[in-house]
Formats: sequence, structure tokens, C-alpha cells
Amino acid sequence: MRIDLNADLAEGFGIWSLTDDDALLDVITSANVACGFHAGDPLTMQRVAAAAVERGVAVGAQVSYRDLAGFGRRFVDADPAELTADLVYQVGALREFTRAAGGELAYLKPHGALYNAVVHHDAQAGAVVAAAEQAGLPVLGLPGSRFLARAAEAGLTTYAEAFGDRGYTSDGTLVPRREPGALLPDADAVVERARRLATDGVIVAVDGTEIPTEAASLCLHGDTPDAVTSARRVAEALRDAGVTLAPFA
Amino acid sequence: MRIDLNADLAEGFGIWSLTDDDALLDVITSANVACGFHAGDPLTMQRVAAAAVERGVAVGAQVSYRDLAGFGRRFVDADPAELTADLVYQVGALREFTRAAGGELAYLKPHGALYNAVVHHDAQAGAVVAAAEQAGLPVLGLPGSRFLARAAEAGLTTYAEAFGDRGYTSDGTLVPRREPGALLPDADAVVERARRLATDGVIVAVDGTEIPTEAASLCLHGDTPDAVTSARRVAEALRDAGVTLAPFA
Amino acid sequence: MRIDLNADLAEGFGIWSLTDDDALLDVITSANVACGFHAGDPLTMQRVAAAAVERGVAVGAQVSYRDLAGFGRRFVDADPAELTADLVYQVGALREFTRAAGGELAYLKPHGALYNAVVHHDAQAGAVVAAAEQAGLPVLGLPGSRFLARAAEAGLTTYAEAFGDRGYTSDGTLVPRREPGALLPDADAVVERARRLATDGVIVAVDGTEIPTEAASLCLHGDTPDAVTSARRVAEALRDAGVTLAPFA
Amino acid sequence: MRIDLNADLAEGFGIWSLTDDDALLDVITSANVACGFHAGDPLTMQRVAAAAVERGVAVGAQVSYRDLAGFGRRFVDADPAELTADLVYQVGALREFTRAAGGELAYLKPHGALYNAVVHHDAQAGAVVAAAEQAGLPVLGLPGSRFLARAAEAGLTTYAEAFGDRGYTSDGTLVPRREPGALLPDADAVVERARRLATDGVIVAVDGTEIPTEAASLCLHGDTPDAVTSARRVAEALRDAGVTLAPFA
Repeated sequence: MRIDLNADLAEGFGIWSLTDDDALLDVITSANVACGFHAGDPLTMQRVAAAAVERGVAVGAQVSYRDLAGFGRRFVDADPAELTADLVYQVGALREFTRAAGGELAYLKPHGALYNAVVHHDAQAGAVVAAAEQAGLPVLGLPGSRFLARAAEAGLTTYAEAFGDRGYTSDGTLVPRREPGALLPDADAVVERARRLATDGVIVAVDGTEIPTEAASLCLHGDTPDAVTSARRVAEALRDAGVTLAPFA
Repeated sequence: MRIDLNADLAEGFGIWSLTDDDALLDVITSANVACGFHAGDPLTMQRVAAAAVERGVAVGAQVSYRDLAGFGRRFVDADPAELTADLVYQVGALREFTRAAGGELAYLKPHGALYNAVVHHDAQAGAVVAAAEQAGLPVLGLPGSRFLARAAEAGLTTYAEAFGDRGYTSDGTLVPRREPGALLPDADAVVERARRLATDGVIVAVDGTEIPTEAASLCLHGDTPDAVTSARRVAEALRDAGVTLAPFA
Repeated sequence: MRIDLNADLAEGFGIWSLTDDDALLDVITSANVACGFHAGDPLTMQRVAAAAVERGVAVGAQVSYRDLAGFGRRFVDADPAELTADLVYQVGALREFTRAAGGELAYLKPHGALYNAVVHHDAQAGAVVAAAEQAGLPVLGLPGSRFLARAAEAGLTTYAEAFGDRGYTSDGTLVPRREPGALLPDADAVVERARRLATDGVIVAVDGTEIPTEAASLCLHGDTPDAVTSARRVAEALRDAGVTLAPFA
Repeated sequence: MRIDLNADLAEGFGIWSLTDDDALLDVITSANVACGFHAGDPLTMQRVAAAAVERGVAVGAQVSYRDLAGFGRRFVDADPAELTADLVYQVGALREFTRAAGGELAYLKPHGALYNAVVHHDAQAGAVVAAAEQAGLPVLGLPGSRFLARAAEAGLTTYAEAFGDRGYTSDGTLVPRREPGALLPDADAVVERARRLATDGVIVAVDGTEIPTEAASLCLHGDTPDAVTSARRVAEALRDAGVTLAPFA
């Protein structure tokens, strides 16, 4: 009975901040650190990587399209070779900070629109996999995605994640954001999601169906006003239920 | 009798190109590869790093202020901690490409306005040295600069360079660009500069004074129309004079 | 018998240049000036706008996705409201330079991937039209595109263009770039394309079909090595044939 | 007895926000709108310009060095011609939004490090004045600065401002930020500063000296946690004292 909690960190840029990095690092076990293309200025990356290493939190490269203005949430029809190079660049930058802090980079996870694109977009999925191969990194992504399939084909170690606060349909896909049940109703529901995942390896869908899953990590959002409070509740409830929180990687 | 020839490469960005990277890589022994902040998109960096490794050309990180619009030629009064993080970020990106190509990053050299600033600006010189320390890299810079002095104090390996096409005064400083003698008159003069440096360890000033120098490398410009032709002549003349061309690092 | 020749100008950025703006301004009658999002630094925009006004060349805003690294050639799935604001921003910047030079901005033309997207992408076509409406500008685009259709519906003045160097199929669409006939074989063919368009209002397809067209302008490429030579030949041949070259707007 | 209250607005970028633009627009009479180079994405600029016009708040162009990563707070040794073009570009973008909303751009004010630079840096002061001249705009700046002096010499309308929350020495300069008295102790002191300025035309220095000033506007900070509360108190206290709040321009 163990699980990993991951969240997106370092998502400020220069004067602007978004995530309460220090507070979240006290709760989560894997930090998806922004690498400068959608967010994450170098000084913030350096600070967050060092703080994560200090706490034993795994550091993952949260790589993105080059899109500060759109926070990486807009699909960009980038050429695969160009996309691979963009991602390797980001990985290298974060690896340097992580090593300087005495740690090692643990995995790669695509951000935002890239995360969504590589669920189905074969060429871009291949581009992300190529970046992970060149960087020698395991990957974290959506179960059933082209991304994880191609990563497995390439011989990479793959980790699947479930979402802490999103509703699932009985066939294991997410309830679309505009439909009822897209978001879990309250923090208790998030805690229950996490507990069932950690103890029974299932996700409970909106209609009650229990979906077996290989998810090794639960993704918590870090950019909402009550993100820290909610994350703390989830972590405490899991520990109370005898679940060990530890990095998947 | 050996010397290193270095030049700035990968100084395009996206559709724009500036340096004939492939041709120069056939001539020089150390490539100062732009790292994305003043020039150097990731795809170009990847390609140039791989081509350099393939040819046995040493790869150095040519780090800069964040200034694409100004090509890194404008002094930016950046806070030292921020500047250090910016440089480590750039180093890490290039290191990733270099290692993926089977090589190792060999040194760090500041670019443009940063190169000029750290001749005298103690705080920024310290910031560049801190980046090199965190990255565990030797540095290449101007003899007599605060930069090389602080790098030596920090226990880093330092390398000094001389300029292939600039006139020197008898006290070893460069003739200002607006004065007569700022640039050597022709390619023959550049060849002679290189030959005397390699064989006798001296730079001949505009008034004929022979200035002893520790310079381990000669910097050739890569962004002029006749850069490649000129570089080839220098390399051939040096080989004809029995000088071995090899990376300093 | 009159026609307009348009070309993309000001497509450098900082130290990098792409188009021979001054030479092309001596030939064309409408300048699509890059506005900083895919290319076109402010100093270049200022200079090109002033040079165009001085020569009586019409100044158009060549607006783009925010994508310097991709030169605006990558589709970006931007939200329409955001896209409209991005384009109005670019228009305003260029208008300021044009007015300071004593001229007036004459039209708006989308660049690169945006140009291609709005042929079919209704929401983005609407976003570009909204920008032109807010800016009170005529538009220049592809005949038969959603963009020109929506612009006409919105009551904007629309101008269609034909391509000087691309092959057309008998149904009036472009021959895909990977197929034979995608590019006209030589400069003579471009001249003939221009002459028939100007004198008879037809485009001659690869199979000889004469396609009637409303095109008020012929688009010449400015970013190829022989762009200026080719453009001069076209302009001279047209004048020799008694065609008046003048801005459409 | 009238005064203008100005504040910096639109200082977010994309997903990141900094200033509570709507709340401040209900209080101030002149909005220094960020123009995209240090902050201010186009959609935010569009929205803030429209909201300002709707409320009768004057819209000023808060122009900056190109420095998103540093929020325009780092001196950049930009060439004057380049700086002028950068500023005209920003002005044009904001003017377009302002006009589309039915208003007119009212003035230009340099931001951050540029504001500080042009107090003494003659060449950059001249560059900012050149931009204002080309744009045909009055300027707002620091009394006694080279910037206002050169603007007056160029025949521009100039407006001086005082700071609402900074301590002044008896010779009219600001108490340096690291010294005691740099910031006024509380909101009451800010209110008193504003009242004396509006009713008597004086600034009271830290030692009690009353300094006559031509300041037509009082600058309030918009980026502190209690910015809105503080601004409301100042505005109410001034109205209670019979002072009319109205744009200077």
C-alpha cells in the first residue's frame, strides 16, 4: 500500500508566481518542475529543485511547448524533430540545477496542451518519447495514451497517473470539463479517490464502477487557491489509512 | 607549438542563420555554442553539438544575458543570483545535447556584453564564476579580466584567449574600435598574429611591441562574410608552420 | 490593366535579416510588413514603414501568431479572443510607425500558419476579421477562404491575391508542395503568370486551364536568394506589357 | 484644489496577474497601462484600456525595456535609436486598443529601470523623448529629471508626479530604499501626503520641511497586497477634504 503524489511546481515567471512551491513540497512526493518554456524562470527552477532534493521529493521535468504567453495550454503544431530538441533543452536545464543540488532528475512529464496532444497525436508522442530516450529518463503520463504506448515500445520505464480531482467515466476516460461530474464535489471525495487508488488499485467512476488501474501516482493541482490545504488533507488521510507516500521513481 | 582556435557557433535562431557552422567546425578546435539566450535555438544547438563531437571539436557553452532582440550585446544590470541561474540553465541545456551526442561539455565562455562586463564588473564576474563552479566547468575569457581572476581564486581551471583580428596596444589592451589599428589590415596579418602566438607566445602590438601572453586559444570571428575563408587560411598557415591545432581543454 | 505586387518585408529580427527590404521596396507596390510576433523588430519595422511611405508603397500589417522561434509557420490553437487581441496589438504598433512616417496603414494580411489556418478554420478566421474590424482595415487573403468570406460578411473591403510562383490546379487550388508543378519552372513562367493575371484576369493552371480570378494582387516571395532579381524581372515585363503597377488599396 | 492619482495597471502576463485592475480603475484617475514589454499581454491591455475609457480614467502608455523576465526592473544599455523604436511600438499597440474602445491615449510614462535611468541618463532620456515626440504625447515623470527637462526642451507638454508612499529628503529627492524613512509609516501618512500635495502644492519631507512642487499627479502602487484598500482610503480622504480627483492630461 503505497502511492506517489505529484503536482506541478515552479510555475511562476520572474515577478509572477502561481504555485506555493514550498508548502506543496512538504506534502507531495514527486515535483513536476516547470522548465522555462511555459513557466519557470531559472532562479525559481534552481530554488525549487534544491528544495525538492533537500526534502527527498523526486524531481521530474515538466516539459512544454515554447509558449509563455499561453502557459503551454495551446496546441502548437511543432515539427517532431524541433519538438524533441525543445524538450531535451528543457530537461538539460533542470537536470543541471538538480545535480548542482545533489540530486538526480527522476522522470519526464509533458505539460498542458502537449500532455493532451500526445494522448492521440502519434508524431508528437514519438517526439516526446525521443526526448526521454535521449535524456535517459522514465516518463509519467496518461494510461492508455499513445505517449505511454510508444514509450513502452521504446523500452522506457513508464508510469501512469490518475487525477485527484477529476471525474472518470465507467470506461476510464475523464468526464469532459463541461459535463456534470467533471470535478469531484469536495475534498472528501478527493481523499476517497486517493485512498481507494492506493489501497485497492481502483478508480471509482461517477457511476460507481470500480476501474482497475496501474496508476502509480496521483496528480494534485497546485495552482488553485486551496491547493495546499487540499493536498495536506489528502496526504494526512492517506497516512491515517496506512498508505505509504513515496516517489514512484 | 600548439594552439586552439575558437569561434562562436550556432548563432542563428529558428529561420535565421548567422554562422556557417559546418564549415567552421572543419577548421576550428573549440566551438563556443550559443545556448538560446542571445541566439541558438535548441535544434541548432543539438545539430552543432553533435557535429562538433563527431569532429573532435571541443564544445563550450557560450552563455549570455537573456536578450534575443539585442543578440546579447547590451549590458543588462542583472542581479548576480539571477544571472548565475540564467547561466546554469543555459549550460545544462547544452550539456544535455553534448552528452546525447557522446561528448562532454568542455568549458564556459561568456558572450557579448556579458563578456565585456565581467572584465571589470566584479559582481557579475562573480556570478559567472558561480555558474561555472556549479557546473564544474573550466572557463575561457580575457587575460587580466576580473572574470579570470575570480575564477582562479575559486579554484577553477582558467584559459585566456587572444583575438585573431584585433589590434593590441603596447600595454596589451585592445585598440578601441573607433581608432586606427582597431582591426588587423588583412588576412595575412591575422595569420601572422596566429603564428607568432602559437610559436613564440607573443602578441605583436600595433607599434611592434612583442607582448608575452598566456593565451591558450585564438578567437576567430564566425559572423563575417569571409569568416570561413579567413579561418581556413589561418589554420592552413599554422599547420604549414608546424603548429598543432588542438583544443585547449 | 493594372495590378499590385505584394511581398513580405521586415522579416528579420535584431541582428538577423532575411529579406532585402530596400531592394524589394523599389519593385513592389504593397509591403506586408512583419509586426514583431513572427519577425520584425521595432527598429526594422520603423525603417521599412518609413521607406515604404517615402516610395508610395502601400503598407500592410502582416500579422502572425506569437511565434518567433517558429517564424509563425506553426499552427497555434489560440483562443479567438486572445488571437484578436494579439493581432490588434501588432496592427497598432505598425500603424504608429506608418503614421509617424507620414503614411497610413492600408490593409491587414495574416502570415504563415495563420494565413493557412484561416482558409478553413472558422473560429480563427472570425478572430482575424474581428481584429481587422477593430482596426478599421481592409484585408488581403486567399480567394475562396473562410477568412475573405467572413470579412465580406462583416462589411470589410476584401482583396484577393494570387501567388506568383506556385502552380495551380484546374479547380483553382494550389498544387501541393510535394507534387510536380508545385512551383513554376522559371522566372519566365512567373512573368507570364503576372502578365496574364494583369491583362486578362486569369490564372493559367498546370494543365493549361484558364481560371478567371478576382485577384487584385500578385504575391512575390521575398525570402529566396534570387527574390530581388526575380521581382525586378516581373515588374519590368509587366510595365513593358503596358500594365500599370499600383497598390490595390 | 485638484489632483490626479495614477497607478500601474495591466501588469500581468498570460496566466499570471499582479494588479487588481478593475478595483484600482474605480479609484484612480490615470492608468499607466503596461504595453507588453515588461508585462501586459494584449488581451489584458485590451480589457484594461476599455475599462479605463468606460470609467473616464485617462490611459497612459507605461513603456519599458524589453524584459519580461526582469519585469523591466533591470537597466538595459540599449542603443537610443533602438530604444525609441521599442517605445513607439508599445505606444502604438496601446493606442490601438484605446481608440477601439472609443478613447484616446493621453500620455507616456517610462516604467521601472527605464524610469530610473532617464533621471540621469541623457541619451536614454533623449530616446524616450523622441518616442513621445513621434507619438505626439505628453509625458509623465520625475520632477528634476533629465527626462522632463529634455521633453520640455522638445516642446512637449510635461507633467511631474510625486510618490504617495515614499519618504522625501529636505532637498526633494527620495530617501533611499535602504534608509529609515524610505517608506511612509502607514496609510494615514499617505493620505496626509496626498492632501497637502493637493491643497497646498507641497510635499512634506521626513524632517518636516515643506517642499513646493509642481507635481500634477500622485503615484500610488498597485502591486502590493493592500494596494486597493490603501488607494480607496486616499481617494476618500481627498474627496472629504474637498479635493477634486481628475486626470491631469
